Amino acid sequence: MHLLSSISRNIYPLNNRSMDAAKKRWDTLIHPKGSLGKVEDICIQIAGIYETEKFTIPKKAIIAFGADHGVYEEGVAPNSQEITKIQFPNFKKGICGVGSLSKYVGSDIIAVDVGINCDEELEGVINRKIRKGTSNIAKGPAMTREEAVESIEIGIEIAEECIVKDYKIIGIGEMGIANTTPSTAIISVMTGKLPEEITGSGSGLSEEKIKHKAQVIGKAIELNNPNPTDGIEVLEKIGGFEIGAMTGVIMGCAANRIPVVIDGFISYAAALIAYKINPGTRDYLIASHKSNEPGSDVALKMLNLDPILNMDMRLGEGSGAALAFNIIDASIFTYNNMATFEEAGMKI
Amino acid sequence: MHLLSSISRNIYPLNNRSMDAAKKRWDTLIHPKGSLGKVEDICIQIAGIYETEKFTIPKKAIIAFGADHGVYEEGVAPNSQEITKIQFPNFKKGICGVGSLSKYVGSDIIAVDVGINCDEELEGVINRKIRKGTSNIAKGPAMTREEAVESIEIGIEIAEECIVKDYKIIGIGEMGIANTTPSTAIISVMTGKLPEEITGSGSGLSEEKIKHKAQVIGKAIELNNPNPTDGIEVLEKIGGFEIGAMTGVIMGCAANRIPVVIDGFISYAAALIAYKINPGTRDYLIASHKSNEPGSDVALKMLNLDPILNMDMRLGEGSGAALAFNIIDASIFTYNNMATFEEAGMKI
Repeated sequence: MHLLSSISRNIYPLNNRSMDAAKKRWDTLIHPKGSLGKVEDICIQIAGIYETEKFTIPKKAIIAFGADHGVYEEGVAPNSQEITKIQFPNFKKGICGVGSLSKYVGSDIIAVDVGINCDEELEGVINRKIRKGTSNIAKGPAMTREEAVESIEIGIEIAEECIVKDYKIIGIGEMGIANTTPSTAIISVMTGKLPEEITGSGSGLSEEKIKHKAQVIGKAIELNNPNPTDGIEVLEKIGGFEIGAMTGVIMGCAANRIPVVIDGFISYAAALIAYKINPGTRDYLIASHKSNEPGSDVALKMLNLDPILNMDMRLGEGSGAALAFNIIDASIFTYNNMATFEEAGMKI
Repeated sequence: MHLLSSISRNIYPLNNRSMDAAKKRWDTLIHPKGSLGKVEDICIQIAGIYETEKFTIPKKAIIAFGADHGVYEEGVAPNSQEITKIQFPNFKKGICGVGSLSKYVGSDIIAVDVGINCDEELEGVINRKIRKGTSNIAKGPAMTREEAVESIEIGIEIAEECIVKDYKIIGIGEMGIANTTPSTAIISVMTGKLPEEITGSGSGLSEEKIKHKAQVIGKAIELNNPNPTDGIEVLEKIGGFEIGAMTGVIMGCAANRIPVVIDGFISYAAALIAYKINPGTRDYLIASHKSNEPGSDVALKMLNLDPILNMDMRLGEGSGAALAFNIIDASIFTYNNMATFEEAGMKI
């Protein structure tokens, strides 16, 4: 808890002076003011994070966490739980969705096991396993409060290890069969929307199974009754280890003034927990894409985030974050390389 | 008219067999079926266009057209008409929005003057000037029917010159002070929406000036009364030379089975004209971004297109198309580089 508390105390607002300077630079570049929309906004936000209007981003990484979920036994996922441990090592190999998309954009991947249901070490994966999956939230809390704090602190530590290695922007990703179930539960509790309004197909459930999943989520919320204003309690009662670790990365990056590119639905849940622990984290987030899960709109609205990409993706892994790196890189290149009206000899 | 007619006769549907083969390949790649959304759709569409499921895109270009507009004299634009001739040569120099974004993504730019209000040759710009700007649509037709056909045929010719040089994907862009006015008029006529419902700020009009602009558009439509089912007539009566040339690029690419990445609002108008001339053109389009102009939704709905990017951009130039190239390239890389379940030794 010491690390989490001290990190949270070190999250400060964006630097307005740097943001104004970046905005001022945009206004000198040869285009109608504001007409590049989020291409401009992204650079202004990053200027506010870095506290300088002059920057490039030479090194970027996706930090992804793998974990399993006790609620899997309620039949809420179409795939075998085994897939978590089988697919997760593929992240580093660059052969899955996030692997290929990261390779294309020149991003590294850090893959961390925080709770996969297996005994063996996974190739290329950092072992920070808390335990072999959460408990079944339909029968009791997902984890203890100590475990919830531990999961967040692992995220903070991994983020800080990356930051020391000069990564200047971090995307977050995950792998965990059944993890849209705790994520939907978290978003339901945080936003007040009923599970039946926001439960979706995850990686491919039938209509009938979606109804069952919503019932399981409703039961988990009723039984555990987490206090929606206490982010750590929500994580403890109905969360997941990878969700907590993603929350930790957000907090660790925010405290170190590093922008965090969130991915899809699972990362919205992590971002909401971070927001409840410290609302200042929000300003460090860039929303990559709008997930196809039905709870996305309410979650993004509460976070006041408007994603860059509209791709109907629902893969997770960090794939949307890796894809958005392309747009962020292009935006920064444009910010640094467009001519000013003066350089172009133009008077407007 | 001979070129336009013969091109239009050569636009065929996408190849379903190649699309099925691409879909089949996606289903063998290690992810839940369909979970990469438009990353998959883009590749399936391109397979249907190229008539093969095996492809890369080594060479890409933005074709941009510059032209001026007689309706400028009605006070519908915040900037001086001079800006068209001043800014357009900056496309090739790589120092403006589309220039920087193209340089980042490795796309070439072809800049063509089809109607800029100047006598001098513009540096780096291909001269295919029809005349020095359209006539004022608030007082009569923008151009003659012959000029409308000529503008489209120039677009076809420029597209075919690029295709001969092995460009395998084309983005479209434009520059023309006041050109959201004819574009809004076209979209109003095509969709049946009233000008006051869909007229926006263009490159930065005040609320009061937007009202005036809507009135000018209403007057132009009433006076010219184009038949909405005749794309060429709509272009003739209330269009622009750059809009017609963009229509031509779409038609030329469709007839040569080359995907076209459309940009923002002006290109929606061009796409609607192409659609009215030959509905088969639509299948060759990839929508890059949703423009911030209020008429975007109805135009995109009529085209049944759902853009990749949600950037609040309203610059034009082809900037959104250039930005979308990043996502298209990343999608194709992923399609070609993800492992199959078999390669990864996974059984699902």
